[in-house]
Amino acid sequence: MTMANAFGAADFARLSEEEQAMIARRERVLGPAYRLFYERPVHFVRGEGVWLYDSHGQAYLDAYNNVASVGHGNPKVLDAISRQAATLNTHTRYLHDGILTYAESLTATCPAELSQAMFTCTGSEANDLAVRIARSYTGGTGIIVTSHAYHGVTSTVAEFSPSLGPSVDLGVHVRTVAAANPNLPADAIEADFAQGVEAAIADLKRHGLKPAMLIVDTIFSSDGVIAEPPGFLKSAVAAIREAGGIFVADEVQPGFGRTGDAMWGFLRHGIVPDLVTIGKPMGNGYPMAGLIARPEIIADFGRNARYFNTFGGNPVAAAAGQAVLDVISEQGLIANARTVGTYLREKLAEYVNRSPLIASVRGAGLFIGMDIVEDGKPSAQAAARIVNGLRERHVLISASGPQANVLKIRPPLVFSRANADTFIDALHAALADMS
Amino acid sequence: MTMANAFGAADFARLSEEEQAMIARRERVLGPAYRLFYERPVHFVRGEGVWLYDSHGQAYLDAYNNVASVGHGNPKVLDAISRQAATLNTHTRYLHDGILTYAESLTATCPAELSQAMFTCTGSEANDLAVRIARSYTGGTGIIVTSHAYHGVTSTVAEFSPSLGPSVDLGVHVRTVAAANPNLPADAIEADFAQGVEAAIADLKRHGLKPAMLIVDTIFSSDGVIAEPPGFLKSAVAAIREAGGIFVADEVQPGFGRTGDAMWGFLRHGIVPDLVTIGKPMGNGYPMAGLIARPEIIADFGRNARYFNTFGGNPVAAAAGQAVLDVISEQGLIANARTVGTYLREKLAEYVNRSPLIASVRGAGLFIGMDIVEDGKPSAQAAARIVNGLRERHVLISASGPQANVLKIRPPLVFSRANADTFIDALHAALADMS
Repeated sequence: MTMANAFGAADFARLSEEEQAMIARRERVLGPAYRLFYERPVHFVRGEGVWLYDSHGQAYLDAYNNVASVGHGNPKVLDAISRQAATLNTHTRYLHDGILTYAESLTATCPAELSQAMFTCTGSEANDLAVRIARSYTGGTGIIVTSHAYHGVTSTVAEFSPSLGPSVDLGVHVRTVAAANPNLPADAIEADFAQGVEAAIADLKRHGLKPAMLIVDTIFSSDGVIAEPPGFLKSAVAAIREAGGIFVADEVQPGFGRTGDAMWGFLRHGIVPDLVTIGKPMGNGYPMAGLIARPEIIADFGRNARYFNTFGGNPVAAAAGQAVLDVISEQGLIANARTVGTYLREKLAEYVNRSPLIASVRGAGLFIGMDIVEDGKPSAQAAARIVNGLRERHVLISASGPQANVLKIRPPLVFSRANADTFIDALHAALADMS
Repeated sequence: MTMANAFGAADFARLSEEEQAMIARRERVLGPAYRLFYERPVHFVRGEGVWLYDSHGQAYLDAYNNVASVGHGNPKVLDAISRQAATLNTHTRYLHDGILTYAESLTATCPAELSQAMFTCTGSEANDLAVRIARSYTGGTGIIVTSHAYHGVTSTVAEFSPSLGPSVDLGVHVRTVAAANPNLPADAIEADFAQGVEAAIADLKRHGLKPAMLIVDTIFSSDGVIAEPPGFLKSAVAAIREAGGIFVADEVQPGFGRTGDAMWGFLRHGIVPDLVTIGKPMGNGYPMAGLIARPEIIADFGRNARYFNTFGGNPVAAAAGQAVLDVISEQGLIANARTVGTYLREKLAEYVNRSPLIASVRGAGLFIGMDIVEDGKPSAQAAARIVNGLRERHVLISASGPQANVLKIRPPLVFSRANADTFIDALHAALADMS
């Protein structure tokens, strides 16, 4: 399986000399594991707000990168990082106020049950730690994920990230369930998804494996941006708990206000997870991630195994994370995600009638998916042409989903209504070019 | 098993109100997995060079923290981070010159065979990636480590980090070998260690497990700071290769010039590893790590599995890493580690005769271990008293080793001869207090 929106060797000859030289250096010194986006990869040298600038000074509208959630080069976050790095950067085995204040701010965004935080550097590490905790708490090993899930790249997490493709083996203790089917009637989705989870639990038990956890993105991301209807996770969560496992909400993509409804995707669903894993936008690019937990879930693990992550929760990470929370609050970015996201989705929905390529638009807030079809069938080719057509018009998105036919639109939360209009104009032109 | 130099609840009542309040907040919001150093934990608020300052303005000489290798708050690294973060911070799926220049600088410090680099955020992730690569390359699963090794905290890496203690299970495919015995004659150590590795290989095979890798710190760290004689790893490396496995040099602690002989610990041993994992001091506190590889080892893995780490190798990490390499070179820090390290070890060695507690001094460069004994037997209690005695005299070290009786002295590489004298004075006073 090839990665959606990956640069392929076949396109090499069309590139500029500068691009060819950089790609040759990448192959020589980074090796074959690294992939580039787009038929014509982009060489960025500067970023500001929702804009990235290439080496010729051309501006690109960023409608894809959720890491720089409060904007590329956000001055408040930069200032927090620079100040704290110049003052002190150590680790969690000395006392420091920063991590405490930040952990208190972070848990204050959650229901009271979720009162403790632990810090890592990446979402992969957060999900990997969730596995260690789930196994310790439940005594089980079984893990249930959606059929095209992506949760990270450690050995253990890659084993339950089927979207990495058939070259990466799933664990013998891993079961996949079909993602919620967006084409079912809304009132049938919850039961349908829960049935899948119950079948996976039964199959684990049939093989002598005790379930440890169900983990899902609270907006299913790599499964094709599936968000609706709010609440559909409830029965599945009840089922895994009934079977002795825990529920882990992976908020690495939907978290920090992206859904426009609340700080966390799980709040849309009216559930309180056992563990919540967080990452990408947490430090607006400063490498940090972690998890938020119900204390009873991590009590035994913490006592017996301890946990130390050299850089995780260091004073600079705490300062960056606090600045991000402050900016989200001060600038009303959750409300912005809701209003601009709604506006953009409404505009995009008009193309369902206008273009035969666009079958549907869905999502929540500024996390939007569009199904691309040709002759009524999912088309990765058409999706790729739109993604690359937008790139030629200096707008960045990518594609996702098991059939790589879902446009994934996931801009920084500071995206404005004017940015949405620019996006629509570029999409309009890209589609016109294809018809 | 308790962690060496961990704060224990029994000491709570002796602390100041401020310290008690911070510890209570830690327990409430970070939970039980976090540990503090020292009987009386330290609350640092500022750092500069080899000095850390507590909340009362008291300076502490840092003779322990290898992350801030080019000095706390190094201005050149700070400047690189601030400038690049203000300019651009994206990821490796766009073209960027920073990661290429840095990867070229990094591989230029290695023998020509080690020509490719991959980037993660933590040493745990680097060692976890090494496992994925080793399994892909060899088709085996068996992992051989020293009996008190520490390589990280992901699920997979914790399974071959026996120093985490009996609460963390080793993998069924993991075998431990006794660390090189520093009490053997120097010319017997190589054969003795290789015999252990060969026995572990035979035992893996006896259980139907194919060896994938031998991984060791190139100065055995948690096993008690074992460095001598240079070259003793050679036969063990030959043995694992003969068995179809690869050799992974964990340079997270000894790397980046600490040994005083060369940039990397493996160079002291005259060997060229298959993979080299790197971390802690790589960005002087900016969260970054990675591995350096022989291209043939990562070729299949890279093609089949791809690898993307959201923050790994981002433009800010590349800038920080490049600044660290530049400072090491411009300030001659490898030579400084050698000369100051030699001076310090010579001064420390005088105490082998002067104090019945100090049985031996060993190490290389600024990575030094001292065996602490009482009545001729390893004594964790006496080691803890020295560590805490130094802390009361405002000098930071810690303890290590399977019996927690080895003082671990591992200061920033900018440690001076005057700093070494200050250290000796404090040690002298701490020992005098104990006699």
